[in-house]
Amino acid sequence: MKKILVIGIGAGNPDYITLQAVKALNRVDVFFLMDKGQSKDKLIDLRRDICERYISHHDYRFVEAASPERERGDVDYTSSVDDLNLAKQRTFERLINEQLADGQCGGFLVWGDPALYDSTLRILQAILASGACTFEFEVIPGITSVQALAARHKVTLNQIGRSVEITTGRRLAAGQVSDADSLVVMLDAQDAYQQVADQETQIYWGAYLGTPDEILISGKLKDVADEIERVRKNARMANGWIMDTYLLRKP
Amino acid sequence: MKKILVIGIGAGNPDYITLQAVKALNRVDVFFLMDKGQSKDKLIDLRRDICERYISHHDYRFVEAASPERERGDVDYTSSVDDLNLAKQRTFERLINEQLADGQCGGFLVWGDPALYDSTLRILQAILASGACTFEFEVIPGITSVQALAARHKVTLNQIGRSVEITTGRRLAAGQVSDADSLVVMLDAQDAYQQVADQETQIYWGAYLGTPDEILISGKLKDVADEIERVRKNARMANGWIMDTYLLRKP
Repeated sequence: MKKILVIGIGAGNPDYITLQAVKALNRVDVFFLMDKGQSKDKLIDLRRDICERYISHHDYRFVEAASPERERGDVDYTSSVDDLNLAKQRTFERLINEQLADGQCGGFLVWGDPALYDSTLRILQAILASGACTFEFEVIPGITSVQALAARHKVTLNQIGRSVEITTGRRLAAGQVSDADSLVVMLDAQDAYQQVADQETQIYWGAYLGTPDEILISGKLKDVADEIERVRKNARMANGWIMDTYLLRKP
Repeated sequence: MKKILVIGIGAGNPDYITLQAVKALNRVDVFFLMDKGQSKDKLIDLRRDICERYISHHDYRFVEAASPERERGDVDYTSSVDDLNLAKQRTFERLINEQLADGQCGGFLVWGDPALYDSTLRILQAILASGACTFEFEVIPGITSVQALAARHKVTLNQIGRSVEITTGRRLAAGQVSDADSLVVMLDAQDAYQQVADQETQIYWGAYLGTPDEILISGKLKDVADEIERVRKNARMANGWIMDTYLLRKP
């Protein structure tokens, strides 16, 4: 039987890795690295660094594969993600069938936690359901950027006895959020915080959390929203990409 | 200046600890352990075990203090929590003033992540705001039971592009939740999943996650809700306490 480990490696800071993840890294024969193009080469490098830093032997190798891209523009979001995941499924099947021998262990390294806004688990479950290949798999949780954000701002995610909603910039921009008084927004490519009506809302924003490039800004939207938009745009241009997240708290 | 580290030690499994937390443990001179009474002695023991396991010197000590208890029964929940936190604040102030010398480092160990349903950060911020003592503090995130739950069930918390709401059993029982299709429920002392109307809802339930006592049950509410209630009651009687959490996913 083949074995797959889906390993959450935390959000940027190599020290966010858990001991469970370190042990898992040391069991892997073949790491599958999905390449998202030149602008994210830095992320691939960071994954190699993490392996070099934490694996105590040399009996492992990397296999890189081009990560299929989601069709953008005027397409339905959910169906474009479905298409993307089907393309990824074919890629994963090929990698597992061609690169992994029986009895070997393959590893996928996931930024943050595989349970939050990551498709790896869904794709592996789909492959198993299709019968295209067979394997066992385990999931190792990791520190998410949401947790890094809260820790670096020294705030709690929830108010006393209240709920927290974790959502996407897309949903916030479309008004598809509940009236939770604590709202965490991920994957916001469109500065959706600018569309929040109540300007007394507190925002805790962070980019490149846990890395040397980390940026933190907090305050009321009326005071800091434009600053965040400006800083965000400049950082994205300087680095070629940005990973950011924020917590909105109602007054 | 005194320093306080609020260290998330993960949800039960000692391997859930991060390298950042291990480094933080090694900086602490005095660990403050809040004692919640006999039934949770096992949790205090586990904290001592974690220190012994991961600290590479012997220059640290433990200070135990009785943790104030929340008034239960027919009282307003939020004000009873406020009262509790005020009592905790006095206890923390006393510990920091009496047990920690200038230049020393104190540590609070928090199960899971200090940002989620834990009052330590709120209390420390309140002490700083009151001026009752001065110190610097840092927060180290940890793997929550929510993440352990998802990893052990090998499911994602969110559906594609959708939201996740994290809430309490109290709010679920009171109907104070949004219509998020993924709902994580913590701190449920009253089997609130029994009150969910749609019996086709999928539940992923876990208790004592990441420990040798771990129990996992999943299925549609109509098939497993009564089983969960029975297993939960028996486990609680056998262990004297229970820590459980679950994910509800709409059909």
